[in-house]
Amino acid sequence: MTTSDILQRDLDASGILRLTLNDVGRRNALSEAMLAELGAAFDAAGADQAVRVVVLAANGPAFCAGHDLKEMTAGRSADDGGKAYFAKIMSMCAGVMQGIVNCPKPVIAEVTGVATAAGCQLVASCDLAIASDSASFSTPGVHIGLFCSTPMVALSRNVANKHAMEMLLTGDITSATRAAEIGLVNHAVASDVLQDTTMELARKIASKSSMTLATGKRAFYAQRDMSLSDAYDYASSVMVENMLAQDAREGISAFIEKRSPHWQDA
Amino acid sequence: MTTSDILQRDLDASGILRLTLNDVGRRNALSEAMLAELGAAFDAAGADQAVRVVVLAANGPAFCAGHDLKEMTAGRSADDGGKAYFAKIMSMCAGVMQGIVNCPKPVIAEVTGVATAAGCQLVASCDLAIASDSASFSTPGVHIGLFCSTPMVALSRNVANKHAMEMLLTGDITSATRAAEIGLVNHAVASDVLQDTTMELARKIASKSSMTLATGKRAFYAQRDMSLSDAYDYASSVMVENMLAQDAREGISAFIEKRSPHWQDA
Amino acid sequence: MTTSDILQRDLDASGILRLTLNDVGRRNALSEAMLAELGAAFDAAGADQAVRVVVLAANGPAFCAGHDLKEMTAGRSADDGGKAYFAKIMSMCAGVMQGIVNCPKPVIAEVTGVATAAGCQLVASCDLAIASDSASFSTPGVHIGLFCSTPMVALSRNVANKHAMEMLLTGDITSATRAAEIGLVNHAVASDVLQDTTMELARKIASKSSMTLATGKRAFYAQRDMSLSDAYDYASSVMVENMLAQDAREGISAFIEKRSPHWQDA
Repeated sequence: MTTSDILQRDLDASGILRLTLNDVGRRNALSEAMLAELGAAFDAAGADQAVRVVVLAANGPAFCAGHDLKEMTAGRSADDGGKAYFAKIMSMCAGVMQGIVNCPKPVIAEVTGVATAAGCQLVASCDLAIASDSASFSTPGVHIGLFCSTPMVALSRNVANKHAMEMLLTGDITSATRAAEIGLVNHAVASDVLQDTTMELARKIASKSSMTLATGKRAFYAQRDMSLSDAYDYASSVMVENMLAQDAREGISAFIEKRSPHWQDA
Repeated sequence: MTTSDILQRDLDASGILRLTLNDVGRRNALSEAMLAELGAAFDAAGADQAVRVVVLAANGPAFCAGHDLKEMTAGRSADDGGKAYFAKIMSMCAGVMQGIVNCPKPVIAEVTGVATAAGCQLVASCDLAIASDSASFSTPGVHIGLFCSTPMVALSRNVANKHAMEMLLTGDITSATRAAEIGLVNHAVASDVLQDTTMELARKIASKSSMTLATGKRAFYAQRDMSLSDAYDYASSVMVENMLAQDAREGISAFIEKRSPHWQDA
Repeated sequence: MTTSDILQRDLDASGILRLTLNDVGRRNALSEAMLAELGAAFDAAGADQAVRVVVLAANGPAFCAGHDLKEMTAGRSADDGGKAYFAKIMSMCAGVMQGIVNCPKPVIAEVTGVATAAGCQLVASCDLAIASDSASFSTPGVHIGLFCSTPMVALSRNVANKHAMEMLLTGDITSATRAAEIGLVNHAVASDVLQDTTMELARKIASKSSMTLATGKRAFYAQRDMSLSDAYDYASSVMVENMLAQDAREGISAFIEKRSPHWQDA
C-alpha cells in the first residue's frame, strides 16, 4: 500500500485507513489519475486484512469538485469527438463508486468543504458520512449543460425524490445541515471536531469483527433491490451462515458470559 | 395552446407555463373534463419548444379535491354498475400522473389550500412542490370506503412507508410544514410569498438548457427502478451522449472561460 | 382466540386486538415459543372478522430484546452445529415479520422500552409505530459478531440508507426522538400518554371499513416493488374493484348525503 501525491494513504494501529484526496490545486477533481488511484486504493483496502474501516477525507477547501472538466474537454480532440474517452472516464468513475459499495470494509466520508457533482456522488456512495457544518453539496451540472446523471444514481439512493430533484434541477448548494436533514450525510458537526468525530465512529466500527461487517455490508446492498420475500429468504440464509461462523460463536458466548469477545481477525 | 374555462394556461417570456386549475366551484376536482384538459396540457407542454418549465397552480381555497365523486357516482347507472367507466377514469388519471412524470419539462406544484386524494397524488407526481404554509394534504379515501390506492403509488414514492401509511390508514390531514418534513413537498413558505418563491424557482430552472433538463429528468425516473449496476451502466451512457451534445460543449467551454453559456434552444 | 402466558390477547368492543408481549423475565425475546405464539396470533387476527386493528404492545422495561440467544446457543449441540435449528428459527422469524405485513388488519406497534435486533425489526415491520419518548432502538448484532441481517430487511425499508447503516455498523442506540426523525416510528410521545395515543389512533382506523383497509394495505405493499407504470396498472384495477364494492358505494353516498356511513362488516 503506497501513498501517491494525489491520494494519501495512512493506516493506523486500529485498522483505520485514511484515504486523503490531495490534489488541492485541482480541487481534488476526479481526474483520470485520481480515479485510478481511488479504484486501486479501495481494491487494496478490500483485500488487506489489516484494514478494518476506511475514512475518505480531503485536503484543501474543496472535498472534491467532481470530474476534471479541462481534462475531459481535451478529450474532445479525438477523431470521435471524445466519445470513447468519455465512456472510459464514466466507466472508471462508476467503477470507483461501485468499488466503494462493494468494498467489504465500511467506508466513511469525512467531508470538509464543497462536494460537487461526482464529488457529491462520492459522499453519497460511502456507507456513512460526517460533514463539517461548513461543508456544502451540489449537483451543478445543469449550469454547464451536463446533467449530473451519474451522481444522481447515488444521490437518489440516499434522499427522497423531491430533495434529489431540487438539487439536480437547480444546481443549488445544499448546506451540511440540510444535507443531514435529508439523509445525504449522517451528521453535520463543528469543523473543529469533525476529524475526532469521524475517527471515533471509525474506531467504534473497527472494534467489530471484520468478517461480520463484511457479511452485513454485502447483504445490505444485495437485499435492497429484492422483493420483501426474496430479501427475507436471502437474509435468513446469510444469518444462518453468520451464526455458524467462529466470530458469532465467540461473540454470543462472550455476551452470555459478560466478557469482551476476541475476533479471529483482530 | 388554448386556455379553457377550467384550466388556465399562461406562458411567459422566460418559458414558464403556468397551468392553473380553475374549476373553483368543484374544488378543482379531477372530473373527466379536467383530466382531459390536464392530459392534453402536459402533452402540449412537452412538445412545445417555447415551454421550459411548467408550474401547476390552482385558483380557490382547494388546490384539488381529487376525483369528482358525483360524476363517478352517476357512472354507476350503466349496465355494468360503472365498471367500464371507473376503469376509463382511472386510466385517464394514471395517464395524467404519468404524463407529468414523463413530460420532458420540469413540473413544479404551487400548492395553496387543500390537496386531497388524487389532488395529493398530483402534488406527489410533480418533480418539485412548494406549498403555502396554510396548505394541507390528505388521502381521505378510507373515510368513504375507497382506499386511496392510486394516490398511494405517487405518495409512497415520495415519503417513507410509515408516513405514507399514516396518511392512508387514518385519512388525517397533514400540514404543509409536516409535508415538508416528510418529503411530500420541498418547502412550505408563507402564503404571501408562495407565488414569488415558485416563480423564482421556475425561472432558475428555465435558465438551463432544455435539452439537458429533459435528458436528466428522463434518466432520473428511468434509473430509480434499476439495480445499482444497471443504473450506472445506463446513466453512464446518458452522460456520454450528454457530453457530446452541443449544450454541454458550450456550457463547459463557458465555464472554463468564465462566461455565460448560450443554449441552442434558448 | 386464547391468551397464553407469554403473549396476552385482549380484544375490545371496537375491534382493537391488543397483543402484549409478556415474557418479561426474558425481555420478551423472540424465543421459539414466542415466535410460534406471534405467528398464530397474526394468522388468527387476520381471519377473525371481529378484529379490525392490531396493537402490538409489551410488558416490562424491554419492548423486545430480539432472538433468544441462550436458546439459540443450546441449538449448537446438534450434529450439524445448529444449522438446521438456526434455519428453522430464521424461517419462523421471517414468517412472523411477513405475517405482520401480510395481515389484512393494520398493525400498530406501541413501543415502550428498548427494541433490539429482531425486536427493532418487529417495530419496523408494523404498518405504524408510536413510541414512548423513553423508548430506544438498536440493531446491536455487530457487538456479538452476528450482523443484524434479517432486521435490516425491515429497517432498510423504513429509513434512509445512511441512517440504517449507522445503526447496523455501530450497534448504537437510537432514541425515540431520533427514530421519529428518520421514519422508523411515526411519532414519539410522553410515556404517560403513549397508550392513549396508540389506542386513539387504533380506534380511528377501526372505525373504517375493514374491507377497504384490507384492500389498501395489501395493495400498498404489493405496488411498492413495481415499476411506476406497473404500479399504476395494478392500483387502478384495485381502485375499480374497490369502487364496485358495497362499502365504497355506501361511503360515497353517505359523503354526498352528508351522513355517517354504515360498513357491511361493522
